[in-house]
Amino acid sequence: MIMDLKREALKLHEQLKGKTELKPKIAVDQRVLSLLYTPGVAEVVRRISDKKEEVYRYTGRGNAVAIVSDGSRVLGLGNRGPEAALPVMEGKALLYKVYGNVDAVPLCIKTQDVDEIIQFVENIEPTFGAINIEDIEVPKCFEVVDELTKRLKIPVFHDDQHGTAIVATAALLNALQVVGKKLQTARIVILGAGAAGYGIAHLLYSAGARDMLVLDSKGILSRKRKDLHIYKQRLIALTNPHDEDGTLDDAVQDADVFIGVSGQADILTPAMIGTMHEPVVFALSNPDPEILPSLAFRAGAKIVATGRSDFPNQVNNAIVFPFLMRKILDERISHVGGELMLSVARQIARMTKPLTAEHIIPTVSEMRPL
Amino acid sequence: MIMDLKREALKLHEQLKGKTELKPKIAVDQRVLSLLYTPGVAEVVRRISDKKEEVYRYTGRGNAVAIVSDGSRVLGLGNRGPEAALPVMEGKALLYKVYGNVDAVPLCIKTQDVDEIIQFVENIEPTFGAINIEDIEVPKCFEVVDELTKRLKIPVFHDDQHGTAIVATAALLNALQVVGKKLQTARIVILGAGAAGYGIAHLLYSAGARDMLVLDSKGILSRKRKDLHIYKQRLIALTNPHDEDGTLDDAVQDADVFIGVSGQADILTPAMIGTMHEPVVFALSNPDPEILPSLAFRAGAKIVATGRSDFPNQVNNAIVFPFLMRKILDERISHVGGELMLSVARQIARMTKPLTAEHIIPTVSEMRPL
Repeated sequence: MIMDLKREALKLHEQLKGKTELKPKIAVDQRVLSLLYTPGVAEVVRRISDKKEEVYRYTGRGNAVAIVSDGSRVLGLGNRGPEAALPVMEGKALLYKVYGNVDAVPLCIKTQDVDEIIQFVENIEPTFGAINIEDIEVPKCFEVVDELTKRLKIPVFHDDQHGTAIVATAALLNALQVVGKKLQTARIVILGAGAAGYGIAHLLYSAGARDMLVLDSKGILSRKRKDLHIYKQRLIALTNPHDEDGTLDDAVQDADVFIGVSGQADILTPAMIGTMHEPVVFALSNPDPEILPSLAFRAGAKIVATGRSDFPNQVNNAIVFPFLMRKILDERISHVGGELMLSVARQIARMTKPLTAEHIIPTVSEMRPL
Repeated sequence: MIMDLKREALKLHEQLKGKTELKPKIAVDQRVLSLLYTPGVAEVVRRISDKKEEVYRYTGRGNAVAIVSDGSRVLGLGNRGPEAALPVMEGKALLYKVYGNVDAVPLCIKTQDVDEIIQFVENIEPTFGAINIEDIEVPKCFEVVDELTKRLKIPVFHDDQHGTAIVATAALLNALQVVGKKLQTARIVILGAGAAGYGIAHLLYSAGARDMLVLDSKGILSRKRKDLHIYKQRLIALTNPHDEDGTLDDAVQDADVFIGVSGQADILTPAMIGTMHEPVVFALSNPDPEILPSLAFRAGAKIVATGRSDFPNQVNNAIVFPFLMRKILDERISHVGGELMLSVARQIARMTKPLTAEHIIPTVSEMRPL
C-alpha cells in the first residue's frame, strides 16, 4: 500500500468518525412521538408480547444485522483486538447499506472465548434478523458458527467462509467455461486452509469438483498428517482422492486451477505455473497476491484473478454479502446452507456479461439483486 | 389510551418497520471504498491496535450508545421479554438522534440473569461510547448498574433512575420557587420505591431535601420494615428523619410535595390532598396519573405536573436523556454521578422561561444544549 493511500485513509477516517449514522425514518412532531414513543408504543409492546413473531411486523428487526467480531483475526493482520476491528466492521456496515439497504450494526466484543462468544450472540438474537460473524480466528470461527447455526432460529452468515466461497466458485465456474474445462475433472489446488479455503473447498465439492488438494503452511492435507484439527480433517474427506503428500511444488504439478487464500505474497512462482496445465490462477490474498498477474500470464496462465480492484477479475466478497443478505432477509431464509450458496454462485456466474478471460465475475456496480 | 391512538400507533409501526435507518456519511465510489474498506482501513486498524484510545479518533465509537434491555419491565407493562421491548428502545434511539444527534443502538437481550447481563454489557464496551440501561426490573437494574459502573471505563446511564431523577428535581426546584417554599424544609412524599423513586430520593437529598418519606406498595419505608431489599434499606438512611410508619394517608398529612412514580392510577385522592399544605403534586405515572390535574386543583393543589403531553408541566425523561448524553459524549464524561446530575437539573430549571405555575419545566422543543 502506498504512503499516500495510508495518509488519505487515516485523514478520511478522522474526518468522518464513523462511516454511517442514524437517520429518522419519519419527521418527528408531538403527534408522531405520541405514536412511536409513549403512550402509542405500549400497544405495540402488547401485540409483540402476545405473539413474538409480530416483532418482524412492527419493528426494524427484519432488516437488522449484527456484525460480530472479537478482533482475533482482523483482515490479514492477526489478533488486533475488538477496538482495532471496529473500523473494518463499520466499512462492512457501509457496504451492507449502500449495496443491500441492510441496517447492520458492528458489535466488536471484548471476549475471545468460544463459549462466551456463542453466549453473546445467543443473547442478541431477539434484536436481529440475521448474524454476520466476521474476523474471528480459525478454528474458533468454525466452532462458533457451527454451534450458533444449531442454536439460533435466525441465519448465521460467516462472510470469511460463506461469502468468499460463493464469489470464488462463481468466478471459477466462469473461468472454466472460458478455458473449456470441466469442474468435475479439473485438478484444483487450494492454498490456505483457513475460513476461506475451508468454505471454497466445501462449495466446490457441492458444485461437483472431485480432484482437489488443499494445502496449509505445512503442505498438502492428507491422511498421514497427524497435526490437523477437526476442520482440516473434514477437508480430507472431500479432497485428495489419490492420497498425495507434499509441498506446493508437488501439488501444482499438472493442476488446472490454483486458488490462493493463504495470506502469503509471491508464494506461487512462475516456475510452478510452468508445471501446470494451461492454468486458471486465482491469487486472492490481499493486499499482496500469491503472484502478480503480469508474472502469472508470462508464465503461461490463461486466466488470472486477484482480490484487488486495480487488476481485472476482482474476486471480492463485497459483490456477495450485501446482495445475499438482502435476499436472506427478504425471503426470511433461516439457514445459510450449501444449496443456497451454490445457487447464488451460479446466479452470479450467469450475471457476468460479457463473459471473457478479463471478465469472469461482475464488479459490485454490475451486480443485480439475487 | 383511546382506540384511535392504538390503531394509529400500530399502523405507523407497521408502515415504518423500525424508526431509524442507517445513512452513509459519504457518497461511495471506488476511491472512497479503497480508503474506508480494504486496503485503506488496514492502516487505521494498525493505528488503533497500537493505541486503543485512537478508536475515538477514527471510528464512530465516540457517538455510539447501546440501549440495553432484557425486557423484564417494559414501560409499566411488566416482564414482556426482549422482543416486546424492542419498539420502545427503537423509540428511544429515535429521540436520541432527533434531539441529541446521538447514534444509539437498541440491544434487547435474551437473558434476564444479572450476571449474564453484566457480562454482556462488559463485552460490548469496546464498540460504544456510553451505555444506556433501560427497562430492567428492580432491584436487578440497580445491581447491574452499580456493578457496571465499577467495571466499565465508559459511562453507564440508567434513564429510569438518572433521567427521571434529573427531570423531577428540575421541576421541583422551580415549583418550590413559584410557591415560595424551601427544598431544605419542605415535607416531600415520594410514592414508588422503584428505579424512579430511588433516583429521585437520592438526587433530592443531594440537592438539600431533608424531610422526605418514600413509600412502596406496603407503606412508608422505615426502620421497622423487615421486608426491604438492600436498595430500599439505603433509602431509609436518606429519608424518614422522624422514624414514621404508616400508609399514604399518614404520609401526606401536612406534606408540601407529593411525587407519584407508583404506576398506580388514581391512588392519590382529593381527600388526601385536602390534608396537605398548599401542595405541589407531581402525578407522574403513565399513561394514567396518580390523580387527574383537574381533581388535584379542585382539592387545593397549587401546582400540578404529570408525565403526559396533554396537560401543562410534562415531567418527561425525553427532555433529559438526548441532551445529557450529547454532553456526556462531547465531554467524554466517564461517570454519571450525583454532582453531574444535580448541576444538569439546576441548569434545566434555570432554562425554564417564563417560570410560572403552568410552566415549571421546558418542553422538549424548548430545551437547549446542556
